[in-house]
Amino acid sequence: MFTCVGYATEAADQPLRPFSFERRDPGPRDVRIDIQYCGVCHSDLHQARNEWQNTLYPCLPGHEIVGRVSAVGSAVTKFKVGDFAGVGCLVDSCRNCPSCAEGLENYCEKGQTFTYNSEDKVSGGLTFGGYSQAVVVDEGFTLKIPANLDLKAVAPLLCAGITTFSPLKHWKVGPGQRVGVVGLGGLGHMGVKLAHAMGARVALFTTSPNKAEDARRLGAEEVIVSRDPAAMAAQAGSFDFILDTVAAEHDINALLNCLKRDATLCQVGAPDKPLSTNVFGLIFKRRNFAGSLIGGIAETQEMLDFCGQHGITADIEMIRMEEIETAFDRMQRSDVKYRFVIDMASMPAAA
Amino acid sequence: MFTCVGYATEAADQPLRPFSFERRDPGPRDVRIDIQYCGVCHSDLHQARNEWQNTLYPCLPGHEIVGRVSAVGSAVTKFKVGDFAGVGCLVDSCRNCPSCAEGLENYCEKGQTFTYNSEDKVSGGLTFGGYSQAVVVDEGFTLKIPANLDLKAVAPLLCAGITTFSPLKHWKVGPGQRVGVVGLGGLGHMGVKLAHAMGARVALFTTSPNKAEDARRLGAEEVIVSRDPAAMAAQAGSFDFILDTVAAEHDINALLNCLKRDATLCQVGAPDKPLSTNVFGLIFKRRNFAGSLIGGIAETQEMLDFCGQHGITADIEMIRMEEIETAFDRMQRSDVKYRFVIDMASMPAAA
Repeated sequence: MFTCVGYATEAADQPLRPFSFERRDPGPRDVRIDIQYCGVCHSDLHQARNEWQNTLYPCLPGHEIVGRVSAVGSAVTKFKVGDFAGVGCLVDSCRNCPSCAEGLENYCEKGQTFTYNSEDKVSGGLTFGGYSQAVVVDEGFTLKIPANLDLKAVAPLLCAGITTFSPLKHWKVGPGQRVGVVGLGGLGHMGVKLAHAMGARVALFTTSPNKAEDARRLGAEEVIVSRDPAAMAAQAGSFDFILDTVAAEHDINALLNCLKRDATLCQVGAPDKPLSTNVFGLIFKRRNFAGSLIGGIAETQEMLDFCGQHGITADIEMIRMEEIETAFDRMQRSDVKYRFVIDMASMPAAA
Repeated sequence: MFTCVGYATEAADQPLRPFSFERRDPGPRDVRIDIQYCGVCHSDLHQARNEWQNTLYPCLPGHEIVGRVSAVGSAVTKFKVGDFAGVGCLVDSCRNCPSCAEGLENYCEKGQTFTYNSEDKVSGGLTFGGYSQAVVVDEGFTLKIPANLDLKAVAPLLCAGITTFSPLKHWKVGPGQRVGVVGLGGLGHMGVKLAHAMGARVALFTTSPNKAEDARRLGAEEVIVSRDPAAMAAQAGSFDFILDTVAAEHDINALLNCLKRDATLCQVGAPDKPLSTNVFGLIFKRRNFAGSLIGGIAETQEMLDFCGQHGITADIEMIRMEEIETAFDRMQRSDVKYRFVIDMASMPAAA
């Protein structure tokens, strides 16, 4: 075991603050990564403040982790000390169920081990995430980082990147298709970049007309103001796929109505309230309303390699560890373009 | 033109009553069918009483039509006088759009012509349905009836049959699958029979435990009482497909939760109020919530042929034309096993 310093909170109404805890030394298949950068996902805020009513305290968030390998177990083959490595939302799964057998550990039927806020089936206790100096993870759940990308801007790919890449891939987005991305936040800006790189003609649906210029810079060819009923009605039946990244209550029916026959709207934002769904909109064009959760490990590697080939990273704003609460507050006001990343060099040496 | 007697209503608060109107004589591609039987669909009641707020009056319902060909146009090749023929929910479509080109006239992108309550693009005025002595329809929208089936029990196949067959086929229901059918009414009892005949293991979801015996007789191997939260929770993640025939507000989330990863719940009942949809249920297993509308003409013929091969018809209760309002009232109380069919011999000779 070794002592590790991170930022954690003990309760929903408490801020994140320095926190000292123990991590296991690497076992035969483990990799120890000294964390250099960790992205700040909206989930981190939801969990820290118990907004999904399932937080296990102390809560130490962070699942967009990149760093350098500082130790490897005897059986590790994928990494050597000094390599760059990444960890996303998962650190373990049952590895035996049909979903795991298909490489979809994100849908593990026995229960995935999330990078934080899960029971740690190896070390006991809870898993603690990437707002910390180091992490120890089975090499099967670690990712290789393309050498040509800016490391700190790679961090958000580990959640925002795979969460958008996986459904775009699953629903076969590609050239000749018109694809909508709803919302231009951390997930949405990656959705625009990735769908564009996959060859689709991308339209951003946004409530904020002032995001139009940025959307075009990121790869969208059109911007549709979703608060304008006439603009929405004009899009009826014209989209092959819509990726909805909005994590708040919103009008899903006006968006479903934009889909062609047999097309799918996939929700990757996770509103905590149910969405009111008009069944006629589904019936009259055999439309699908679906959801998707992050991605499997193999497809996360595929996403990173795809980003390497296309020179894609997240648009980020660097923060120091002690700025996390301010960053949460700004994130809640959508005041970030488009992802905060913590420079882990700013972590205090001791809690 | 010829004079035809039917049963129609002039307003939402008026009963159906005898009604005299003109139909066109058959054009070169038309078939005149003297109607022998017409099924009573819940849509007939919705439309007659303007419950979907889109009824065009006078409203003469009926889209589960079977009878005998009494005249054919000069270019008709599919039928000769004396043949049995059927007509379902559609009598015309644009025949040019991508959906029509794929044989999915039910999703015609220029606007289908429904058998009643549509503008009649050939004769002008409104289309009038099967609660009448005769109908004149382009042979492209008429169906051949398998000779081995009881004609009056075939009538409901033209809507209840195809509405359930089409999604079962589209989502590839077959042997080795566990398939749920929600609701045991006109649509549901056909869903159970058809999914069973396709080789699936069928479970009925019902709020009425007293329907269990009937469900088993119709082909279900299991009956799950959907009002029992523990019974529903026990089914989590275990269904390959669910066909939901319920046309009233109901808890869609407990049903979605029964789906396996990547599986679909398809709504064919059409609740007039939106359904409250929990997005987490979709996200955590990449589930799909879809809808489906009747079926195309070619697949309607395929369904009739399938029913001929498997000896499948609807379970029906015969009524006389003047009993239609009583039948509507009973239907609204789910007091029918499982479809009323009007004996058109009971139609008065003149209105």
